[in-house]
Amino acid sequence: MLDNEVMELLGIEYPIIQAPMAGGVTTSELVVAVSNSGGLGMIGAGYMTADQMREQIREITQLTDNTFGINLFVPTEFEVPEEEVETANQLLQPIREQLNIDAKDSLEIPQYKKVLAEFHEQINVVIEEKVPVCSFTFGIPSRDVIKELKRYGIIVIGTATTVKEAMEIEKEGMDMVVVQGSEAGGHRGNFLVEHEESLVGLMSLIPQVVDNVNIPVVSSGGIMDGRGLMASICLGAKGVQMGTAFLTCKESGASELHKEEILQAHEDQIVFTRSFSGKWARGVNNKFIMEMQQNEASLPSFPVQNTLTKGIRKASSSQRNREFMSLWSGQSPRLAKSQTVNALMKTIIAEAKTICNKN
Amino acid sequence: MLDNEVMELLGIEYPIIQAPMAGGVTTSELVVAVSNSGGLGMIGAGYMTADQMREQIREITQLTDNTFGINLFVPTEFEVPEEEVETANQLLQPIREQLNIDAKDSLEIPQYKKVLAEFHEQINVVIEEKVPVCSFTFGIPSRDVIKELKRYGIIVIGTATTVKEAMEIEKEGMDMVVVQGSEAGGHRGNFLVEHEESLVGLMSLIPQVVDNVNIPVVSSGGIMDGRGLMASICLGAKGVQMGTAFLTCKESGASELHKEEILQAHEDQIVFTRSFSGKWARGVNNKFIMEMQQNEASLPSFPVQNTLTKGIRKASSSQRNREFMSLWSGQSPRLAKSQTVNALMKTIIAEAKTICNKN
Repeated sequence: MLDNEVMELLGIEYPIIQAPMAGGVTTSELVVAVSNSGGLGMIGAGYMTADQMREQIREITQLTDNTFGINLFVPTEFEVPEEEVETANQLLQPIREQLNIDAKDSLEIPQYKKVLAEFHEQINVVIEEKVPVCSFTFGIPSRDVIKELKRYGIIVIGTATTVKEAMEIEKEGMDMVVVQGSEAGGHRGNFLVEHEESLVGLMSLIPQVVDNVNIPVVSSGGIMDGRGLMASICLGAKGVQMGTAFLTCKESGASELHKEEILQAHEDQIVFTRSFSGKWARGVNNKFIMEMQQNEASLPSFPVQNTLTKGIRKASSSQRNREFMSLWSGQSPRLAKSQTVNALMKTIIAEAKTICNKN
Repeated sequence: MLDNEVMELLGIEYPIIQAPMAGGVTTSELVVAVSNSGGLGMIGAGYMTADQMREQIREITQLTDNTFGINLFVPTEFEVPEEEVETANQLLQPIREQLNIDAKDSLEIPQYKKVLAEFHEQINVVIEEKVPVCSFTFGIPSRDVIKELKRYGIIVIGTATTVKEAMEIEKEGMDMVVVQGSEAGGHRGNFLVEHEESLVGLMSLIPQVVDNVNIPVVSSGGIMDGRGLMASICLGAKGVQMGTAFLTCKESGASELHKEEILQAHEDQIVFTRSFSGKWARGVNNKFIMEMQQNEASLPSFPVQNTLTKGIRKASSSQRNREFMSLWSGQSPRLAKSQTVNALMKTIIAEAKTICNKN
């Protein structure tokens, strides 16, 4: 029923990819549990240094012989004038005071050149450590990078939010495309279209992309169980990438508070904000999102705003204060469960089989 | 494969409902073609007078013995101060001038009491003419209305955009619920939550609603073919309601220009606006939407704004000027085709069978 080229290309038993959630969610325990259960575990390395990456890759290869992957953020050129940083800082100051944070915290403003250099260091680690699969978000790396990775037998995956973006990913020579529906939690992966235009639901996005590219399509956004897997297959996807469903698993590195917030949330409480990072992302609504909303449009670009809010996110997390944390979640929180990865994987496959037998 | 209670309740061969698009799209020819092809044809009567409804219902019963249905808008209390109408009018004036419209046109501002009285006249026609199925958008009618319709054996369907809205529809005694995903074209049906919170993609919306209500769930939004039908079934829906797919059919009453615009559009050009009617709705982007965008939030409520833009929509349509028409469309325009209803229905069923056999 689920035999296809994605599973063959990735060398996995089930067409299920664990979304490479950045920021500490993808512990080695999580990645290994997914790969050992027949799916593809992924390291969300977007915010990691080359050294941190190398360390985790080595840890994972010690723990599993199965395929796993890694995800990197493609840097986009940015320039944020000092006044803009200052204005954003002032907006954040009252929140820092509420949380008793020293204002001088975490203000090393990123520079594009440095970010780009770090990205190339990350690519080198992927090659040196022979990571089997490398996916990208926020854009397409240069053809040279793609060629180099492929020369080492690494499967290269792009992330698209529209047909145009998926076509571009195919054109640049990537092996596979993950399409991110508007249902998806965390950061939006749009890079050729604006945020609003990128919000296409999977029911519309999957078939329209499938009809316009020849590389395999994997769907992501709101998929939590065997129903979502089989629906994606019906629409023409060859597999699914699931974030929130794995985030609330025992093995995930998300904070307990983050997990609890998702487990208690309803779909109409999951909103978009760009106030945490400067890039649009979806998560559980809270005070930070609401308070920053009126100034949202004028905040600095990613990753500058992300740096500015680092101290706030860290302090609110350690103070167990849900109101100022980034509680990323897709639109299906009612389907989230606290369980092991293995239990989740088994349930999905059992549900998928039941659906197949019924139809 | 597709045998279920929705088909039984509605007395139809295939679990496919033609969305009751208001504003002239649902000609008797369209409704009859759908019902005669094994689906459920629906009259979009939201903007019709009781007399117009009666006339079309009688015409349809002459042309088919199969089940068909009708949809009504549930009136919501509104009050628009004269100054607000005046401001909105001034914003529209430059557009009227571009289109050579007499400004005095179509300015009979609706009053809530009158709208409510007309709604009750519409309900009476549905009962008197024994329409087999009556669906509602923009809210839930009173329990008395629901009971009265059911007493006459009329199947009563509600429209929901979130789990909460679907649960309320069940609680009030309706027989079935259509869930409208964020992919859907035309007006949003949200009534308990705000616009932004109502934008849940079908991949998330269907399973979460199915898990929380006992009445059958029908999905709508971006569904265009057998893939969308089977995906909906996998997610737990018992049937689908399709708008855009029927709008571009030969039998639909949409203008040729409207059909052409959808046939040429891409998914990233389908946007939300409340500038045409005062209620959020999805359609192909154009000059009117872009020009009005900055004042969108402060425009009068539905149906007042709808009345104010009536002349503009009419004139731009008769002048074949796409820029000021409401070109409603869901998020899957690339899947739209110019074809007969019968061809569309046959293709859907054939595709669905192929998918079932493959899995």
